[in-house]
Amino acid sequence: MKLYGYWRSSAAYRVRIALNLKQLDYDQQFIHLRQREQSAPAYLAVNPQGRVPTLELDDGRHLGQSLAIIEYLDEIHPQPPLLPGDAFARARVRQLALLIACDVHPLNNFSVLNTLTELFGADETGRSRWYRLHVEQGLRAMEALLAGDAGGGRYCHGDAPTLADVCLVPQLYNARRFGCDLSGCPTLVAIDRRCLALEAFARAVPEAQPDAQ
Amino acid sequence: MKLYGYWRSSAAYRVRIALNLKQLDYDQQFIHLRQREQSAPAYLAVNPQGRVPTLELDDGRHLGQSLAIIEYLDEIHPQPPLLPGDAFARARVRQLALLIACDVHPLNNFSVLNTLTELFGADETGRSRWYRLHVEQGLRAMEALLAGDAGGGRYCHGDAPTLADVCLVPQLYNARRFGCDLSGCPTLVAIDRRCLALEAFARAVPEAQPDAQ
Repeated sequence: MKLYGYWRSSAAYRVRIALNLKQLDYDQQFIHLRQREQSAPAYLAVNPQGRVPTLELDDGRHLGQSLAIIEYLDEIHPQPPLLPGDAFARARVRQLALLIACDVHPLNNFSVLNTLTELFGADETGRSRWYRLHVEQGLRAMEALLAGDAGGGRYCHGDAPTLADVCLVPQLYNARRFGCDLSGCPTLVAIDRRCLALEAFARAVPEAQPDAQ
Repeated sequence: MKLYGYWRSSAAYRVRIALNLKQLDYDQQFIHLRQREQSAPAYLAVNPQGRVPTLELDDGRHLGQSLAIIEYLDEIHPQPPLLPGDAFARARVRQLALLIACDVHPLNNFSVLNTLTELFGADETGRSRWYRLHVEQGLRAMEALLAGDAGGGRYCHGDAPTLADVCLVPQLYNARRFGCDLSGCPTLVAIDRRCLALEAFARAVPEAQPDAQ
Protein backbone atom coordinates (compact mmCIF):
# COMPACT_ATOMS: atom_id res chain seq x y z
CA MET A 1 0.00 0.00 0.00
CA LYS A 2 1.02 3.58 -0.54
CA LEU A 3 -0.17 6.59 1.40
CA TYR A 4 -0.18 9.97 -0.30
CA GLY A 5 0.15 12.47 2.52
CA TYR A 6 1.81 15.52 3.95
CA TRP A 7 3.52 15.70 7.32
CA ARG A 8 1.27 18.41 8.76
CA SER A 9 -2.02 17.21 7.28
CA SER A 10 -3.96 16.01 10.29
CA ALA A 11 -6.15 13.80 8.09
CA ALA A 12 -2.99 12.05 6.83
CA TYR A 13 -1.73 11.88 10.42
CA ARG A 14 -4.91 9.96 11.38
CA VAL A 15 -4.29 7.37 8.67
CA ARG A 16 -0.62 6.98 9.66
CA ILE A 17 -1.73 6.20 13.23
CA ALA A 18 -4.27 3.64 12.03
CA LEU A 19 -1.75 1.93 9.74
CA ASN A 20 0.73 1.78 12.61
CA LEU A 21 -1.84 0.44 15.09
CA LYS A 22 -2.64 -2.32 12.57
CA GLN A 23 1.11 -2.91 12.09
CA LEU A 24 0.75 -2.59 8.32
CA ASP A 25 3.67 -1.75 6.06
CA TYR A 26 3.17 1.15 3.67
CA ASP A 27 5.14 3.45 1.44
CA GLN A 28 4.62 7.19 1.63
CA GLN A 29 4.45 9.65 -1.22
CA PHE A 30 4.59 13.24 -0.14
CA ILE A 31 2.29 15.87 -1.62
CA HIS A 32 3.61 19.28 -0.68
CA LEU A 33 0.47 21.24 0.15
CA ARG A 34 2.15 24.63 0.42
CA GLN A 35 3.64 24.14 -3.03
CA ARG A 36 0.14 23.20 -4.23
CA GLU A 37 1.17 19.77 -5.46
CA GLN A 38 -2.32 18.57 -4.52
CA SER A 39 -3.69 20.53 -7.50
CA ALA A 40 -1.30 19.05 -10.07
CA PRO A 41 -3.00 16.94 -12.77
CA ALA A 42 -0.98 13.86 -11.76
CA TYR A 43 -2.40 14.00 -8.23
CA LEU A 44 -5.91 14.94 -9.32
CA ALA A 45 -5.93 11.68 -11.29
CA VAL A 46 -5.34 9.92 -7.96
CA ASN A 47 -7.70 12.07 -5.90
CA PRO A 48 -10.10 14.28 -7.89
CA GLN A 49 -10.72 16.32 -4.76
CA GLY A 50 -7.08 17.38 -4.65
CA ARG A 51 -6.80 16.53 -0.97
CA VAL A 52 -4.61 14.30 1.14
CA PRO A 53 -4.61 11.57 2.26
CA THR A 54 -5.19 9.02 -0.46
CA LEU A 55 -4.54 5.34 0.10
CA GLU A 56 -3.37 3.41 -2.96
CA LEU A 57 -4.08 -0.30 -2.66
CA ASP A 58 -1.72 -2.91 -4.04
CA ASP A 59 -4.06 -3.39 -7.00
CA GLY A 60 -3.82 0.31 -7.86
CA ARG A 61 -7.25 1.39 -6.66
CA HIS A 62 -7.47 4.62 -4.68
CA LEU A 63 -9.43 5.65 -1.61
CA GLY A 64 -9.80 9.15 -0.22
CA GLN A 65 -11.24 10.61 3.00
CA SER A 66 -9.35 9.59 6.10
CA LEU A 67 -12.29 8.11 8.00
CA ALA A 68 -13.37 6.03 5.00
CA ILE A 69 -9.79 4.77 4.67
CA ILE A 70 -9.58 3.90 8.37
CA GLU A 71 -12.93 2.08 8.42
CA TYR A 72 -11.74 0.14 5.35
CA LEU A 73 -8.49 -0.83 7.07
CA ASP A 74 -10.48 -1.87 10.13
CA GLU A 75 -12.70 -4.13 8.02
CA ILE A 76 -9.85 -5.70 6.03
CA HIS A 77 -7.41 -5.99 8.97
CA PRO A 78 -9.66 -6.38 12.01
CA GLN A 79 -6.89 -6.68 14.63
CA PRO A 80 -6.58 -4.69 16.76
CA PRO A 81 -10.11 -3.32 16.30
CA LEU A 82 -10.51 0.46 16.05
CA LEU A 83 -14.24 0.26 16.78
CA PRO A 84 -15.86 -1.56 19.73
CA GLY A 85 -18.04 -4.60 19.17
CA ASP A 86 -21.31 -3.21 20.57
CA ALA A 87 -23.39 -1.18 18.09
CA PHE A 88 -24.13 1.71 20.47
CA ALA A 89 -20.50 1.90 21.57
CA ARG A 90 -19.42 1.91 17.93
CA ALA A 91 -21.80 4.78 17.29
CA ARG A 92 -20.40 6.73 20.26
CA VAL A 93 -16.86 6.29 18.98
CA ARG A 94 -17.93 7.40 15.51
CA GLN A 95 -19.75 10.37 17.06
CA LEU A 96 -16.54 11.51 18.76
CA ALA A 97 -14.48 10.98 15.61
CA LEU A 98 -17.00 12.87 13.47
CA LEU A 99 -17.20 15.71 15.97
CA ILE A 100 -13.56 16.36 15.13
CA ALA A 101 -13.65 15.38 11.46
CA CYS A 102 -16.81 17.35 10.60
CA ASP A 103 -17.11 20.13 13.16
CA VAL A 104 -13.55 21.10 14.05
CA HIS A 105 -10.96 20.17 11.47
CA PRO A 106 -12.69 21.32 8.24
CA LEU A 107 -12.91 24.89 9.50
CA ASN A 108 -9.21 25.06 10.13
CA ASN A 109 -7.48 23.53 7.19
CA PHE A 110 -4.97 25.49 5.20
CA SER A 111 -7.17 26.22 2.19
CA VAL A 112 -10.03 27.50 4.35
CA LEU A 113 -7.73 29.87 6.23
CA ASN A 114 -6.45 31.17 2.90
CA THR A 115 -10.01 31.73 1.71
CA LEU A 116 -10.68 33.89 4.79
CA THR A 117 -7.88 36.14 3.63
CA GLU A 118 -8.86 36.12 -0.04
CA LEU A 119 -12.55 36.88 0.53
CA PHE A 120 -12.53 38.92 3.73
CA GLY A 121 -8.98 40.21 4.07
CA ALA A 122 -8.42 38.29 7.29
CA ASP A 123 -4.96 38.92 8.73
CA GLU A 124 -2.97 36.52 10.93
CA THR A 125 -4.74 37.74 14.06
CA GLY A 126 -8.16 37.20 12.53
CA ARG A 127 -7.23 33.78 11.18
CA SER A 128 -5.93 32.79 14.60
CA ARG A 129 -9.13 33.94 16.32
CA TRP A 130 -11.20 31.93 13.82
CA TYR A 131 -8.97 28.91 14.33
CA ARG A 132 -9.05 28.99 18.11
CA LEU A 133 -12.79 29.68 18.28
CA HIS A 134 -13.72 26.54 16.36
CA VAL A 135 -11.11 24.29 17.94
CA GLU A 136 -11.94 25.36 21.48
CA GLN A 137 -15.73 25.08 20.96
CA GLY A 138 -15.38 21.61 19.47
CA LEU A 139 -12.93 20.27 22.01
CA ARG A 140 -14.95 21.58 24.96
CA ALA A 141 -17.99 19.76 23.58
CA MET A 142 -15.93 16.59 23.19
CA GLU A 143 -14.69 16.96 26.78
CA ALA A 144 -18.32 17.26 27.95
CA LEU A 145 -19.34 14.20 25.95
CA LEU A 146 -16.54 12.13 27.46
CA ALA A 147 -17.25 13.41 30.96
CA GLY A 148 -20.85 12.22 30.63
CA ASP A 149 -19.94 8.92 29.02
CA ALA A 150 -19.86 5.64 30.88
CA GLY A 151 -17.66 4.17 28.14
CA GLY A 152 -14.58 6.08 29.21
CA GLY A 153 -11.38 4.44 30.32
CA ARG A 154 -7.75 5.11 29.55
CA TYR A 155 -8.70 6.24 26.04
CA CYS A 156 -11.80 7.87 24.50
CA HIS A 157 -13.62 4.57 24.74
CA GLY A 158 -12.33 1.86 27.01
CA ASP A 159 -8.76 0.79 27.52
CA ALA A 160 -7.53 0.51 23.94
CA PRO A 161 -7.26 3.20 21.26
CA THR A 162 -10.16 3.58 18.84
CA LEU A 163 -11.06 5.71 15.85
CA ALA A 164 -11.89 8.53 18.30
CA ASP A 165 -8.33 8.63 19.65
CA VAL A 166 -6.97 8.43 16.11
CA CYS A 167 -8.83 11.70 15.39
CA LEU A 168 -8.21 13.35 18.75
CA VAL A 169 -4.40 13.25 18.78
CA PRO A 170 -3.84 15.08 15.45
CA GLN A 171 -6.43 17.68 16.45
CA LEU A 172 -4.65 18.36 19.74
CA TYR A 173 -1.36 18.65 17.85
CA ASN A 174 -2.97 21.37 15.73
CA ALA A 175 -4.58 23.00 18.74
CA ARG A 176 -1.22 23.39 20.48
CA ARG A 177 0.42 24.67 17.33
CA PHE A 178 -2.11 27.49 17.17
CA GLY A 179 -2.02 28.24 20.89
CA CYS A 180 -5.54 27.08 21.69
CA ASP A 181 -6.65 27.06 25.31
CA LEU A 182 -6.90 23.44 26.44
CA SER A 183 -7.35 24.22 30.14
CA GLY A 184 -11.00 23.15 30.00
CA CYS A 185 -10.15 19.77 28.48
CA PRO A 186 -8.22 17.76 31.09
CA THR A 187 -9.72 14.45 29.96
CA LEU A 188 -8.67 15.01 26.35
CA VAL A 189 -5.18 16.11 27.35
CA ALA A 190 -4.72 13.01 29.54
CA ILE A 191 -5.92 10.69 26.76
CA ASP A 192 -3.61 12.40 24.28
CA ARG A 193 -0.64 11.84 26.60
CA ARG A 194 -1.47 8.15 26.96
CA CYS A 195 -1.81 7.77 23.19
CA LEU A 196 1.50 9.45 22.45
CA ALA A 197 3.23 7.04 24.81
CA LEU A 198 2.30 4.28 22.31
CA GLU A 199 4.73 3.65 19.51
CA ALA A 200 1.99 3.62 16.84
CA PHE A 201 1.09 7.22 17.69
CA ALA A 202 4.65 8.40 18.31
CA ARG A 203 5.86 7.17 14.92
CA ALA A 204 3.01 9.03 13.20
CA VAL A 205 3.69 12.52 14.55
CA PRO A 206 4.34 15.13 11.87
CA GLU A 207 7.93 15.86 12.92
CA ALA A 208 8.83 12.17 12.56
CA GLN A 209 7.90 12.12 8.86
CA PRO A 210 10.57 12.28 6.13
CA ASP A 211 8.96 15.36 4.54
CA ALA A 212 8.89 17.38 7.78
CA GLN A 213 10.49 20.79 7.43
CA MET B 1 -37.18 6.68 18.89
CA LYS B 2 -37.20 10.43 18.85
CA LEU B 3 -35.28 12.68 16.49
CA TYR B 4 -34.30 16.14 17.66
CA GLY B 5 -34.00 18.18 14.50
CA TYR B 6 -34.79 21.30 12.56
CA TRP B 7 -36.46 21.43 9.17
CA ARG B 8 -33.58 23.15 7.38
CA SER B 9 -30.70 21.35 9.12
CA SER B 10 -29.24 19.22 6.37
CA ALA B 11 -27.70 16.87 8.92
CA ALA B 12 -31.18 16.26 10.38
CA TYR B 13 -32.52 15.89 6.82
CA ARG B 14 -30.00 13.06 6.25
CA VAL B 15 -31.26 11.18 9.30
CA ARG B 16 -34.91 11.65 8.30
CA ILE B 17 -34.13 10.08 4.91
CA ALA B 18 -32.35 7.14 6.55
CA LEU B 19 -35.20 6.54 9.02
CA ASN B 20 -37.69 6.63 6.14
CA LEU B 21 -35.62 4.28 3.96
CA LYS B 22 -35.55 1.84 6.89
CA GLN B 23 -39.33 2.36 7.37
CA LEU B 24 -38.81 3.14 11.04
CA ASP B 25 -41.34 5.09 13.10
CA TYR B 26 -40.03 8.06 15.02
CA ASP B 27 -41.22 11.13 16.82
CA GLN B 28 -39.72 14.50 16.07
CA GLN B 29 -38.83 17.23 18.52
CA PHE B 30 -38.00 20.52 16.90
CA ILE B 31 -35.05 22.61 18.01
CA HIS B 32 -35.40 26.07 16.53
CA LEU B 33 -31.87 26.95 15.48
CA ARG B 34 -32.54 30.58 14.65
CA GLN B 35 -34.06 31.06 18.10
CA ARG B 36 -30.93 29.40 19.50
CA GLU B 37 -32.83 26.61 21.24
CA GLN B 38 -29.81 24.37 20.56
CA SER B 39 -27.91 26.30 23.25
CA ALA B 40 -30.56 25.96 25.96
CA PRO B 41 -29.44 23.90 28.98
CA ALA B 42 -32.23 21.37 28.40
CA TYR B 43 -30.91 20.59 24.94
CA LEU B 44 -27.24 20.68 25.94
CA ALA B 45 -28.07 17.88 28.39
CA VAL B 46 -29.20 15.86 25.36
CA ASN B 47 -26.37 16.94 23.06
CA PRO B 48 -23.41 18.70 24.73
CA GLN B 49 -22.32 20.00 21.33
CA GLY B 50 -25.54 21.97 20.98
CA ARG B 51 -26.13 20.67 17.47
CA VAL B 52 -28.87 18.83 15.68
CA PRO B 53 -29.65 16.07 14.99
CA THR B 54 -29.73 13.90 18.08
CA LEU B 55 -31.38 10.50 18.06
CA GLU B 56 -32.97 9.45 21.35
CA LEU B 57 -33.29 5.69 21.63
CA ASP B 58 -36.24 4.06 23.34
CA ASP B 59 -34.07 3.40 26.41
CA GLY B 60 -33.28 7.13 26.68
CA ARG B 61 -29.70 7.04 25.40
CA HIS B 62 -28.65 9.74 22.97
CA LEU B 63 -26.55 9.72 19.82
CA GLY B 64 -25.28 12.73 17.92
CA GLN B 65 -23.55 13.24 14.55
CA SER B 66 -25.72 12.32 11.60
CA LEU B 67 -23.33 9.81 10.02
CA ALA B 68 -22.80 8.00 13.32
CA ILE B 69 -26.58 7.83 13.76
CA ILE B 70 -27.11 6.50 10.24
CA GLU B 71 -24.37 3.85 10.54
CA TYR B 72 -25.99 2.81 13.83
CA LEU B 73 -29.42 2.51 12.22
CA ASP B 74 -27.87 0.51 9.39
CA GLU B 75 -26.29 -1.91 11.87
CA ILE B 76 -29.41 -2.33 14.02
CA HIS B 77 -31.90 -2.39 11.12
CA PRO B 78 -29.91 -3.83 8.21
CA GLN B 79 -32.70 -3.78 5.61
CA PRO B 80 -32.50 -2.13 3.18
CA PRO B 81 -28.72 -1.71 3.51
CA LEU B 82 -27.30 1.79 3.18
CA LEU B 83 -23.79 0.48 2.56
CA PRO B 84 -22.80 -2.14 -0.03
CA GLY B 85 -21.51 -5.54 1.03
CA ASP B 86 -18.02 -5.32 -0.49
CA ALA B 87 -15.41 -3.58 1.69
CA PHE B 88 -13.95 -1.41 -1.08
CA ALA B 89 -17.41 -0.39 -2.27
CA ARG B 90 -18.37 0.46 1.32
CA ALA B 91 -15.29 2.65 1.55
CA ARG B 92 -16.16 4.42 -1.72
CA VAL B 93 -19.67 5.16 -0.46
CA ARG B 94 -18.26 6.45 2.83
CA GLN B 95 -15.73 8.54 0.89
CA LEU B 96 -18.55 10.23 -1.04
CA ALA B 97 -20.61 10.78 2.11
CA LEU B 98 -17.62 12.22 4.00
CA LEU B 99 -16.71 14.48 1.09
CA ILE B 100 -20.03 16.21 1.75
CA ALA B 101 -20.13 15.82 5.52
CA CYS B 102 -16.52 16.96 6.13
CA ASP B 103 -15.53 19.14 3.19
CA VAL B 104 -18.71 20.88 2.09
CA HIS B 105 -21.40 21.09 4.73
CA PRO B 106 -19.35 22.23 7.78
CA LEU B 107 -18.21 25.36 5.99
CA ASN B 108 -21.73 26.41 5.26
CA ASN B 109 -23.75 25.90 8.34
CA PHE B 110 -25.58 28.73 9.97
CA SER B 111 -23.20 29.30 12.88
CA VAL B 112 -20.15 29.39 10.61
CA LEU B 113 -21.75 31.98 8.35
CA ASN B 114 -22.57 34.07 11.41
CA THR B 115 -18.95 33.83 12.58
CA LEU B 116 -17.80 35.22 9.22
CA THR B 117 -19.85 38.30 9.96
CA GLU B 118 -18.82 38.58 13.60
CA LEU B 119 -15.08 38.22 13.00
CA PHE B 120 -14.61 39.66 9.53
CA GLY B 121 -17.68 41.81 8.93
CA ALA B 122 -18.82 39.62 6.03
CA ASP B 123 -22.01 40.95 4.45
CA GLU B 124 -24.62 38.89 2.60
CA THR B 125 -22.64 39.09 -0.66
CA GLY B 126 -19.47 37.86 1.01
CA ARG B 127 -21.29 35.08 2.85
CA SER B 128 -22.87 33.96 -0.41
CA ARG B 129 -19.51 33.92 -2.22
CA TRP B 130 -18.01 31.85 0.61
CA TYR B 131 -20.99 29.48 0.52
CA ARG B 132 -20.98 28.98 -3.23
CA LEU B 133 -17.20 28.60 -3.43
CA HIS B 134 -17.12 25.65 -1.01
CA VAL B 135 -20.27 23.98 -2.30
CA GLU B 136 -19.27 24.25 -5.96
CA GLN B 137 -15.69 23.02 -5.31
CA GLY B 138 -16.92 20.04 -3.32
CA LEU B 139 -19.71 19.05 -5.67
CA ARG B 140 -17.48 19.29 -8.74
CA ALA B 141 -15.01 16.94 -7.04
CA MET B 142 -17.85 14.56 -6.22
CA GLU B 143 -19.02 14.69 -9.83
CA ALA B 144 -15.45 13.81 -10.97
CA LEU B 145 -15.28 10.93 -8.50
CA LEU B 146 -18.58 9.51 -9.73
CA ALA B 147 -17.62 9.99 -13.38
CA GLY B 148 -14.46 7.91 -12.80
CA ASP B 149 -16.21 5.29 -10.71
CA ALA B 150 -17.20 1.93 -12.07
CA GLY B 151 -19.68 1.54 -9.20
CA GLY B 152 -22.15 4.02 -10.62
CA GLY B 153 -25.70 3.16 -11.50
CA ARG B 154 -28.99 4.88 -10.90
CA TYR B 155 -27.69 6.25 -7.60
CA CYS B 156 -24.23 7.19 -6.26
CA HIS B 157 -23.38 3.53 -5.95
CA GLY B 158 -25.41 0.95 -7.82
CA ASP B 159 -29.15 0.83 -8.23
CA ALA B 160 -30.32 1.45 -4.67
CA PRO B 161 -29.81 4.49 -2.44
CA THR B 162 -26.85 4.43 -0.04
CA LEU B 163 -25.34 6.67 2.60
CA ALA B 164 -23.82 8.74 -0.22
CA ASP B 165 -27.26 9.60 -1.65
CA VAL B 166 -28.54 10.32 1.86
CA CYS B 167 -25.85 13.03 2.10
CA LEU B 168 -26.07 14.26 -1.48
CA VAL B 169 -29.75 15.19 -1.58
CA PRO B 170 -29.72 17.59 1.42
CA GLN B 171 -26.54 19.20 0.09
CA LEU B 172 -28.14 19.83 -3.31
CA TYR B 173 -31.19 21.29 -1.56
CA ASN B 174 -28.85 23.76 0.15
CA ALA B 175 -26.92 24.41 -3.05
CA ARG B 176 -30.08 25.43 -4.89
CA ARG B 177 -31.25 27.56 -2.01
CA PHE B 178 -28.05 29.59 -2.22
CA GLY B 179 -28.01 29.76 -6.02
CA CYS B 180 -24.95 27.58 -6.55
CA ASP B 181 -23.97 26.71 -10.11
CA LEU B 182 -24.76 23.02 -10.67
CA SER B 183 -24.16 23.07 -14.43
CA GLY B 184 -20.94 21.08 -14.03
CA CYS B 185 -22.65 18.35 -12.04
CA PRO B 186 -25.11 16.57 -14.36
CA THR B 187 -24.55 13.18 -12.70
CA LEU B 188 -25.33 14.55 -9.24
CA VAL B 189 -28.42 16.38 -10.48
CA ALA B 190 -29.74 13.24 -12.18
CA ILE B 191 -29.16 11.13 -9.04
CA ASP B 192 -30.87 13.76 -6.91
CA ARG B 193 -33.92 13.68 -9.19
CA ARG B 194 -34.13 9.88 -8.95
CA CYS B 195 -33.83 10.01 -5.17
CA LEU B 196 -36.54 12.62 -4.75
CA ALA B 197 -38.90 10.43 -6.76
CA LEU B 198 -38.71 7.97 -3.86
CA GLU B 199 -41.17 8.45 -1.03
CA ALA B 200 -38.48 8.08 1.66
CA PHE B 201 -36.66 11.13 0.29
CA ALA B 202 -39.76 13.12 -0.59
CA ARG B 203 -41.20 12.79 2.94
CA ALA B 204 -37.91 14.04 4.42
CA VAL B 205 -37.65 17.35 2.52
CA PRO B 206 -37.51 20.42 4.77
CA GLU B 207 -40.78 21.91 3.51
CA ALA B 208 -42.65 18.71 4.44
CA GLN B 209 -41.68 18.98 8.14
CA PRO B 210 -44.14 20.26 10.73
CA ASP B 211 -41.73 23.00 11.85
CA ALA B 212 -41.19 24.40 8.33
CA GLN B 213 -41.79 28.14 8.14
